[in-house]
Amino acid sequence: MAGNTTGSVFRVTTFGESHGQALGCIIDGCPAGIPVSIDRIQQALDRRRPGASFDGKHNNVTTSRNEADRAEILSGVFEGKSEGTPIAIIIRNTAHHSSDYENLKTTFRPGHADFSYFKKYGMRDYRGGGRSSGRETAARVAAGAVALMILETQHICVTAYTERAAGISIKKMNYSEIEQNALRAPDCAAAEKMMNQIEILREKGDSAGGIVACTVTGIPAGLGEPVFDKLDAELAHAMLSIGAVKGIEFGSGFAAADSTGSINNDPIRLDPNTGLPLFTSNNAGGILGGISTGADLFFRIAIKPVPSIFQSQQTIQHKVTNHDSSEYAESELVIEGRHDVCLCPRIVPVVEAMAALVITDLLLRNECSRHF
Amino acid sequence: MAGNTTGSVFRVTTFGESHGQALGCIIDGCPAGIPVSIDRIQQALDRRRPGASFDGKHNNVTTSRNEADRAEILSGVFEGKSEGTPIAIIIRNTAHHSSDYENLKTTFRPGHADFSYFKKYGMRDYRGGGRSSGRETAARVAAGAVALMILETQHICVTAYTERAAGISIKKMNYSEIEQNALRAPDCAAAEKMMNQIEILREKGDSAGGIVACTVTGIPAGLGEPVFDKLDAELAHAMLSIGAVKGIEFGSGFAAADSTGSINNDPIRLDPNTGLPLFTSNNAGGILGGISTGADLFFRIAIKPVPSIFQSQQTIQHKVTNHDSSEYAESELVIEGRHDVCLCPRIVPVVEAMAALVITDLLLRNECSRHF
Amino acid sequence: MAGNTTGSVFRVTTFGESHGQALGCIIDGCPAGIPVSIDRIQQALDRRRPGASFDGKHNNVTTSRNEADRAEILSGVFEGKSEGTPIAIIIRNTAHHSSDYENLKTTFRPGHADFSYFKKYGMRDYRGGGRSSGRETAARVAAGAVALMILETQHICVTAYTERAAGISIKKMNYSEIEQNALRAPDCAAAEKMMNQIEILREKGDSAGGIVACTVTGIPAGLGEPVFDKLDAELAHAMLSIGAVKGIEFGSGFAAADSTGSINNDPIRLDPNTGLPLFTSNNAGGILGGISTGADLFFRIAIKPVPSIFQSQQTIQHKVTNHDSSEYAESELVIEGRHDVCLCPRIVPVVEAMAALVITDLLLRNECSRHF
Amino acid sequence: MAGNTTGSVFRVTTFGESHGQALGCIIDGCPAGIPVSIDRIQQALDRRRPGASFDGKHNNVTTSRNEADRAEILSGVFEGKSEGTPIAIIIRNTAHHSSDYENLKTTFRPGHADFSYFKKYGMRDYRGGGRSSGRETAARVAAGAVALMILETQHICVTAYTERAAGISIKKMNYSEIEQNALRAPDCAAAEKMMNQIEILREKGDSAGGIVACTVTGIPAGLGEPVFDKLDAELAHAMLSIGAVKGIEFGSGFAAADSTGSINNDPIRLDPNTGLPLFTSNNAGGILGGISTGADLFFRIAIKPVPSIFQSQQTIQHKVTNHDSSEYAESELVIEGRHDVCLCPRIVPVVEAMAALVITDLLLRNECSRHF
Repeated sequence: MAGNTTGSVFRVTTFGESHGQALGCIIDGCPAGIPVSIDRIQQALDRRRPGASFDGKHNNVTTSRNEADRAEILSGVFEGKSEGTPIAIIIRNTAHHSSDYENLKTTFRPGHADFSYFKKYGMRDYRGGGRSSGRETAARVAAGAVALMILETQHICVTAYTERAAGISIKKMNYSEIEQNALRAPDCAAAEKMMNQIEILREKGDSAGGIVACTVTGIPAGLGEPVFDKLDAELAHAMLSIGAVKGIEFGSGFAAADSTGSINNDPIRLDPNTGLPLFTSNNAGGILGGISTGADLFFRIAIKPVPSIFQSQQTIQHKVTNHDSSEYAESELVIEGRHDVCLCPRIVPVVEAMAALVITDLLLRNECSRHF
Repeated sequence: MAGNTTGSVFRVTTFGESHGQALGCIIDGCPAGIPVSIDRIQQALDRRRPGASFDGKHNNVTTSRNEADRAEILSGVFEGKSEGTPIAIIIRNTAHHSSDYENLKTTFRPGHADFSYFKKYGMRDYRGGGRSSGRETAARVAAGAVALMILETQHICVTAYTERAAGISIKKMNYSEIEQNALRAPDCAAAEKMMNQIEILREKGDSAGGIVACTVTGIPAGLGEPVFDKLDAELAHAMLSIGAVKGIEFGSGFAAADSTGSINNDPIRLDPNTGLPLFTSNNAGGILGGISTGADLFFRIAIKPVPSIFQSQQTIQHKVTNHDSSEYAESELVIEGRHDVCLCPRIVPVVEAMAALVITDLLLRNECSRHF
Repeated sequence: MAGNTTGSVFRVTTFGESHGQALGCIIDGCPAGIPVSIDRIQQALDRRRPGASFDGKHNNVTTSRNEADRAEILSGVFEGKSEGTPIAIIIRNTAHHSSDYENLKTTFRPGHADFSYFKKYGMRDYRGGGRSSGRETAARVAAGAVALMILETQHICVTAYTERAAGISIKKMNYSEIEQNALRAPDCAAAEKMMNQIEILREKGDSAGGIVACTVTGIPAGLGEPVFDKLDAELAHAMLSIGAVKGIEFGSGFAAADSTGSINNDPIRLDPNTGLPLFTSNNAGGILGGISTGADLFFRIAIKPVPSIFQSQQTIQHKVTNHDSSEYAESELVIEGRHDVCLCPRIVPVVEAMAALVITDLLLRNECSRHF
Repeated sequence: MAGNTTGSVFRVTTFGESHGQALGCIIDGCPAGIPVSIDRIQQALDRRRPGASFDGKHNNVTTSRNEADRAEILSGVFEGKSEGTPIAIIIRNTAHHSSDYENLKTTFRPGHADFSYFKKYGMRDYRGGGRSSGRETAARVAAGAVALMILETQHICVTAYTERAAGISIKKMNYSEIEQNALRAPDCAAAEKMMNQIEILREKGDSAGGIVACTVTGIPAGLGEPVFDKLDAELAHAMLSIGAVKGIEFGSGFAAADSTGSINNDPIRLDPNTGLPLFTSNNAGGILGGISTGADLFFRIAIKPVPSIFQSQQTIQHKVTNHDSSEYAESELVIEGRHDVCLCPRIVPVVEAMAALVITDLLLRNECSRHF
């Protein structure tokens, strides 16, 4: 109801504000007997960390706020395996300097959730965005790490990467290069150009957007629940729940709008080697009628440019903290501190986590819809 | 769980297969005392009907299957008002000739859900797509009509329209023209061009896709639930649950990926007349941090070309009806009967219905999250 | 949310008022491939019907309102089997004379939901209790019949019966006698005495209560979800959702409050024949820690006397139909028409239906919590 | 789904095993702006603690395990008020000696959940009952404390007490005596007799059960959701989810089964002072048709005797830890350590907490069902 839970069977509830005591999650519905490793959770968190996407030379893309982000499992794992009971994971906030945000106490940052939260709740946790901070995704990544351990047992593999940033697209698709550059692009040469462009924007006090793509291999046919909880509907819900995402498309996506049926329909043949059904193209992105076909899933998401920029912006302040009778005044805002210039590389592990949560949930939901 | 319910407070469950006895919905959570008119529901259904988007000259866009689609309210309305109890609405299927589909009994139509449903359930209702048929959306439109009556009391207005079809875009935005052409485009001249292009495709036995856009005005700030049930996440879920939709974008959407923060951030000023907050641009599409800002909502969805085409297609048949041990054979398929050539105009009322369901639900959810 | 849905995986939503067009249910989450027979549903409804519990001699226990109660399946069943899609069942109301209730338009019947509904919704469907009528349970019985067909495939058997009515208890337990007397008691001799006592009350214009017991055999160990959705918690929820039920107890129940651990604990031995675990007593009613042990489930529910009596009763009327500013006046009420004198026999099939819904749901939920 | 969440709008998810790192809860759906005091939460926890129900003389009723049970709020509260975001509370486990339970590693304690959990999950956290431990209720009490702070703002008061223990009932009802004796009975003289009887059982290595009653005053009419989520159904669900509870009855409860309509119906009059509706008796326990009438809520729950007794008991052990192919052997068990002899006084705050959670949730749900 209040929206901090995702999933139907594999249910994840997250909590925590950017500058509160801690953030974390409860995973309810993890089957018993799954090997759960705190190290794997920690590795996933480390990968999401600011400055984690480092190419050995320089990283001007993400902030270098020093967050230790140490995960602790509080429950649900016994002798290295899930017990079938809720798995609670917490991450303490260590580097929170609320005083940094005093100047934002009554000012709404453009492009941020400050104004909409204030209108919703009649109050606002102004410390670093509070609950609306991207920091909340750390809890998702921790939960996603558990989901990924489950998917691994089913040989399902989720891979996200930066396809485009600051107006520059990848030219090739080499999975092994993804972790070799600060952008998490599967093309180190293109990543170099993206970084140059990002550096230009950074110097201007501006920021960049981009596109993150995601592929899921090894997914069985039959995932997704008609009619409202289609696989693409669930993935769209999950991806649009990530802060800076402004759009999603599956398979040929928006290009399908200009295509024709004879081109866009994926023909079905039998694999000459295995005799199994095979789609000879994948404009559907692996989904027909909202249910997986067994072909690879493929979707792209649009990431807006980081709203925290260092140029002066037009905004308003509120004078009275009661949302029913607020008075406002116009003002100019110059944001301080350190901020990401382009979110793509840090969103990559979040996209993988959210995709893993959706697929794990639908795998478990599927257990109930088959022949009994 | 099984996915036929949408909404948290204003919950709609639909049922019905394309060629079963009836389809319909139960709306649970409609507040008591709302005037509910069967005529308004019927009008909404009439608008979704094949051939309903007619410009007085010709309509080569949608099928002319003669579906009476008479809605009947079975419960929940007493003396013209909602009782607070479930509102059940049914629509009998009258024109179902299952025999038309005998030739599809074992053949999977490319671009349709035939194969994925078969893999999911181990069986398949081959009569016109069964549950995966677009006909299911009639139940959504009936439920949406009730939601729209609620939104009307709040002065919230939902308008969808065809922005692009068969590769041709609108050139102007005139709301009053939407219902004056078969495409439901706010530009009759552009619609004429779209129809010409669609006619060319129809003659080739091919089909077209397009883009449907939707604007919601009068929406209060504060709708949407952090962190997973953001307004955009809920809308994306709803829209991607519509059969042929392959993508969605909010505000500047995918274009935001190439923009910069200084351009994409919407400045906030005070309206000189009212003194109220005003966004001077709307790249956000009316949503920040997943919560409505009070600005108009705006999103676009990509519609794939109709998969039922009249050209020969490569596909497979199954020999044994047990999904665990199916044997398949390659075959060629030529689809018969009458089918839509472009879905855009018929999807327009479905988009409005789904948007209305989401917004009504979030309005009611919001009642619980404010100051108590 | 609005409370007309029960179950998590096997979800049943009911609709319908006593004197509306129809009542019915949607079952969402029935696995595909289950044989579903309309005849079995009809038989279950016939058994719930007034006057259905007939012993060949006389039936002074239940009303003889002539309700045809013909069930129709609208969706979800194809070629005699469930499709995995929602199963909608409707029952038209045929014998509704709303005019009978004109005198109750502004008067609240004691012991009925008239006053509480009026306060909740600010309006009231005065025709026969509207949604609060016992007639609503017809939809539960229809849904329960489908659940019972599923349980049958698992060799799980649900049997409810009248254990006590009008102060008289059964003296023996003979399952084959249950359907041989109007009380549905497993002891025809005791039933005869109950009926005599009920006849005395009926002549006085008064009514009787009783106790209905329920046994479930063949249930596997492991059903029930810690910690909130324990098997007993789910059953209690289901049973207390039946109109006239005022209490429930499991196994030794309230008697356990006076027992001691050494007596109340059920010892565990191995069955000498099968070598399998065996509880040598069943004070737990088949449930430990909220999870089934494999022993038979056993619970009892308390049924209050029928509130519709023919003696004059003290009550109030409302003058203004706005619940915020209602004015009331004291009045005397004499109820007219035909009404049950004791609900026990008609509640028996409802208890079986609700128990079947809970167990089916937990069986399906269990599919997700085991070793993956 | 997995059952660790309760509530629809005011949703509480608990986590934690008896001997894990910590236990706690997330409250999602607490409205913004509620004053939340850590001290009040701590007081509630202190009251649930073993040995907390102390009369100054002696306490032979509950264990004296020294659990610090310090609550920490991790999120959702800012400047002393709820933010509208999830409130996470954790309580670290400090005094866990898992080694105490080595002898129970393969033995199922009679009357405990050991066997049923093992059958459900195929594994078992043998340390103090793991998730099935009564210790889990600490998290409920913490969450309930927040609910009680909300109810206080609405002048709703929840009071539970021991009505009967070890076969001895209270003879008077004096609320001020409840916290003056170790049994939490509103009659210190009766409590003295209960304690004497409990002492006799304790010396025999045996244990006692009892009855806990609960009254809620100040509750508005209109709470509860037809038809499945009736107020009594929701309370029954909540109460039966507490470990040792074996039954519940509302108002006249099981006694209603032997009553008649003319006696059991509560007459309605107008209060001569206020002119407002007044029920002149309360056999309904404040609930009609599953909806509160405005009269006081009243219900009783049956508590079984503590299963951990010090007499030798017949049970079985498992030899192989795989639940599909387990081999068992019969054995005798003598439980060691310190254990409660009668749970009533410690269940009293848990009953209050659960009642508060249900009522708070239904209050918030009600916000959505009224006239819009």
